[in-house]
Amino acid sequence: MASYGFGLDLGGTTCKCGLFTTDGELVEKWEVATDTTNGGVNILKNLSQTVLTKMEEKGIAADDVWGVGIGIPGPVSDDGVVNRCVNLGWGVFNVEQELSELLGGIKVKAGNDANVAALGEAWMGAAREYSSSVMVTLGTGVGGGVIINDSIICGTAGAAGEIGHIRVNYTEESTCGCGNRGCLEQYCSATGIARLAKIRLATNDDESSLRDIEPLDAKAVFDEAKKGDVVAKEIARRACEYLAQGLQVISCVMNPEAFVIGGGVSKAGQYLIDEVEYRFNQLAFHGCRNTKIVLATLGNDAGIYGAMKLIL
Amino acid sequence: MASYGFGLDLGGTTCKCGLFTTDGELVEKWEVATDTTNGGVNILKNLSQTVLTKMEEKGIAADDVWGVGIGIPGPVSDDGVVNRCVNLGWGVFNVEQELSELLGGIKVKAGNDANVAALGEAWMGAAREYSSSVMVTLGTGVGGGVIINDSIICGTAGAAGEIGHIRVNYTEESTCGCGNRGCLEQYCSATGIARLAKIRLATNDDESSLRDIEPLDAKAVFDEAKKGDVVAKEIARRACEYLAQGLQVISCVMNPEAFVIGGGVSKAGQYLIDEVEYRFNQLAFHGCRNTKIVLATLGNDAGIYGAMKLIL
Repeated sequence: MASYGFGLDLGGTTCKCGLFTTDGELVEKWEVATDTTNGGVNILKNLSQTVLTKMEEKGIAADDVWGVGIGIPGPVSDDGVVNRCVNLGWGVFNVEQELSELLGGIKVKAGNDANVAALGEAWMGAAREYSSSVMVTLGTGVGGGVIINDSIICGTAGAAGEIGHIRVNYTEESTCGCGNRGCLEQYCSATGIARLAKIRLATNDDESSLRDIEPLDAKAVFDEAKKGDVVAKEIARRACEYLAQGLQVISCVMNPEAFVIGGGVSKAGQYLIDEVEYRFNQLAFHGCRNTKIVLATLGNDAGIYGAMKLIL
Repeated sequence: MASYGFGLDLGGTTCKCGLFTTDGELVEKWEVATDTTNGGVNILKNLSQTVLTKMEEKGIAADDVWGVGIGIPGPVSDDGVVNRCVNLGWGVFNVEQELSELLGGIKVKAGNDANVAALGEAWMGAAREYSSSVMVTLGTGVGGGVIINDSIICGTAGAAGEIGHIRVNYTEESTCGCGNRGCLEQYCSATGIARLAKIRLATNDDESSLRDIEPLDAKAVFDEAKKGDVVAKEIARRACEYLAQGLQVISCVMNPEAFVIGGGVSKAGQYLIDEVEYRFNQLAFHGCRNTKIVLATLGNDAGIYGAMKLIL
């Protein structure tokens, strides 16, 4: 087995890059800008260039590179075909084949970025001790990834792990970005929590420290809840209740060993975990009640770790 | 590879038995009574006896038997340990090991019966053309099984595929058998549909042919709905709506290629499928909208087929 590999986490603004040993040690990480001009035609060229340059810089021969894994912000089929990544300007083509050719034949494996981050946490992060886990990323939206036996479950149309669109409210009148109503994302994403806060504060004149905070975002809600603000606590509790409802249904389907909570909102830390865990254990089917709920530990590096794991 | 194998589907009253070729052809099927006296101590002895007798009868040598698969009505760990099967009187022990010893060392593989039925449908039934599927069995309760890459997903506590306990109603006041409220089973099982019917008929005096039918069961609801009874159609629609909500959340987690609907309620046939499919496609996340929804085809034989597949 070769000694090195690369994990790339491609986003619409930058691509995070990691050089790893095949034992999983991160040797070096860096970023390159994502050039989305001309339908993103230069993206893979630039990525192959940064990989080849790093190999030269470190004196690593091509036959000492096990492969290059890459997380892509969009759906990727099992055989590496991407299907319209709007943030990159890409259409439909085989990203594995194309990047491999640019790298002189080095093996390339691609996956969806949310799934790849889940794989990273499962390999070297919060779920490293668990063989099955579901990661829920609470960011601007809510994403996720399902890992069974240390592998990503993609789903037949690449839509497995679309945790944010689990329906948790059947009476919602506002529409989610996906066009449905009552999706988890409408309550547990950073945007969703801010929305809950605005709705709650507009309900009546209850005193709350949140009324003086600008911007009224998810961080403010959890910060004030921790300080004991009653209204902030109520909003945080509601968001956590919806998240627990989402975890309840996931556990009936998959019964994973652990849930990993990541993304910006997870910076609320143990307060968030405790709130979610308490509610999950009230709602969960009895056979699923001991599922671990843990905070992600790799932060923004989850994607490069997962991408590296893709090729191992 | 040996030419034959056995698939056993153990229930609280009888055990269905199948002799198969390793190509999957069902050579013969029969049943033996399940002796649940004395904590079910005779069950495995009787099963080994019926298998050995059939081998003698057919002139099949032990080395021409690839193995014996068995579906168990309760949780089974990956290594064959059963954990309290109340219907059998069993405690905790390794059923694979014990049955294998009784069979003179023939390989035994055990699985939960609902999962095993799903595997049967995936192997030789309604989902044979799909590599991932979720079976939903609408019987007295609602069970299920999740199949990915032609294998059962058991879950960490054997609770994967507990489809009946996905929460689909957050305002339910009645309690499910599991102790929670709003479980899919409360609306889509035979019992649940009869319950919906009774509640609906008690709401007002609307004319309905259901008022003259005794017993008022799920079959009556679908039969009268097909004949055009407005109230029966409304009840059937409600049950199908809840089922579609369950499938919606499953598809966000797993995005299977197909849903297989089985169990007694599925005798309502294409009417049921059409109602569920219409609602599923309204509710589903856009990436999941083309998931196939099909009727189970193996009926009561799904368990013996799945048990046989366990050992292959």
